[in-house]
Amino acid sequence: MTPSDLPPENGARKRSRRGPALGTCRLKLTLAYDGRPWKGWQTLPGGQTVQDQLVAAMLKVCGEAVSIQGSGRTDAGVHALAQVAHADVPATARLHPEEWITALNACLPLSIRVTEVINADPGFHARFDASGKTYRYRIWRHAVMSPFEVGRAWHVYGPLHMDLLHEATHRLLGTHDFTRLSAYRGVANTRAVAEPGAARRTLTRVQPQLSGDAGELLEIEFDGDGFLYKMVRLIVGSLMQVARGRESLDWFTDLLNEPAGQPKSHHAAPADGLYLVRVGYDGESKN
Amino acid sequence: MTPSDLPPENGARKRSRRGPALGTCRLKLTLAYDGRPWKGWQTLPGGQTVQDQLVAAMLKVCGEAVSIQGSGRTDAGVHALAQVAHADVPATARLHPEEWITALNACLPLSIRVTEVINADPGFHARFDASGKTYRYRIWRHAVMSPFEVGRAWHVYGPLHMDLLHEATHRLLGTHDFTRLSAYRGVANTRAVAEPGAARRTLTRVQPQLSGDAGELLEIEFDGDGFLYKMVRLIVGSLMQVARGRESLDWFTDLLNEPAGQPKSHHAAPADGLYLVRVGYDGESKN
Repeated sequence: MTPSDLPPENGARKRSRRGPALGTCRLKLTLAYDGRPWKGWQTLPGGQTVQDQLVAAMLKVCGEAVSIQGSGRTDAGVHALAQVAHADVPATARLHPEEWITALNACLPLSIRVTEVINADPGFHARFDASGKTYRYRIWRHAVMSPFEVGRAWHVYGPLHMDLLHEATHRLLGTHDFTRLSAYRGVANTRAVAEPGAARRTLTRVQPQLSGDAGELLEIEFDGDGFLYKMVRLIVGSLMQVARGRESLDWFTDLLNEPAGQPKSHHAAPADGLYLVRVGYDGESKN
Repeated sequence: MTPSDLPPENGARKRSRRGPALGTCRLKLTLAYDGRPWKGWQTLPGGQTVQDQLVAAMLKVCGEAVSIQGSGRTDAGVHALAQVAHADVPATARLHPEEWITALNACLPLSIRVTEVINADPGFHARFDASGKTYRYRIWRHAVMSPFEVGRAWHVYGPLHMDLLHEATHRLLGTHDFTRLSAYRGVANTRAVAEPGAARRTLTRVQPQLSGDAGELLEIEFDGDGFLYKMVRLIVGSLMQVARGRESLDWFTDLLNEPAGQPKSHHAAPADGLYLVRVGYDGESKN
């Protein structure tokens, strides 16, 4: 699957809402998963995705096929602390939320856990109603990679200019066209005509933080209204280019300010360090 | 291998010290490992132990067999943040400590890392010189096990009497005979005559601590002069019996006060949650 096949995670223009079919109830599911064993969220032939595993668990619990809609895709190897999905389950199932959690987790591999189930409003849509997301990226800074961080953080050793990192993250705040800091292709590389501003996203918080006894863990959190394909990984990889002194702050700023026709950043951080932390929804009545 | 085959980790009576052989130098190695893939520290036929992996890495780096002596054994599945071992390497190798770290880690699986190498005094002995150790036990308390804690913590859900837990841990402080809270067999179950007090150990700190946003992680740390086979796992398993209200505080106290001929606790916590955190050595000149 190429990036151009992928619709933008949010800001999708066609909001073809469908409520649950007759005789079904809509559930809002929250999931945590270790992404390492899986080929990402979205269903694929072969079934080695998180969504496929959840569909299979639903089939075992309900005795019939249940469609699942996630808030958005996560790539192969990307983790989630709180991915959100909705599922239309047979009304005859009549399980309490706690029973759904127990039943589904009994059928899921240990690397995927349902952490919350809520009876949702029939109009609730996990993807179209998402008003914001939080991603976290974890970087291991010690000379020696921790055996407990393999597949869970990016190992970046060597001096970092933290002042440059902070300045670059500050420049990310607000609304920008992220064409050059994502795998979103736009008009230049696809026959489809992208709408003007289709790659515009707003980041409301970008927060780097050091922790660990010797500052060996660097975490960067991103709050935004939506994220394009590979956007966080390309932002983090490009931030590290600046923090390592390999590229200038101006190089980074240009990626944000001059999207049209200019080359994209190709410095994508690996999937290992990326976590979907939260999916936000306005209007609690829908949750 | 039965527990009676295992000498006490520390307090060993026969201290058959041997300095490095002619033409070799003694190194002090510090290692971190994720214990899940391994059948414990101590070498076994088949080579699926941490020591075997280290011996194999040393053979690759030095071109000849190098004997490794650990500070003590860890069981299958038990982790280490800072296990210590000494190794007598050919003096002709002449690598700097940083080069040893790089060379060994290049030959080791990612679940085992050498974190520090020091040129040790020829008299340094990783096991006999160890004056104390710290173990940590991690317990996951949320209703749903975290996919990131599988194999790294014990999942114990349900109410805990934290006041009883604190009182029981307080009673562990000081010197006790841990025959009934370890797999050490003593005179009752083996033909070997154990010396009086052979199962006596001193705990100087036992500290339970809750962390996580909702107190979902309970960690208990133990500082002691030495630990018997399965001692921490049996202590933690028995502490949980008290904290869950399944056994009384008196039951726990009896395990410490009346060792002779009484039944042992059989409530061993699983290996998953156990971490060797630190091995202490008196006399820095030997390190």
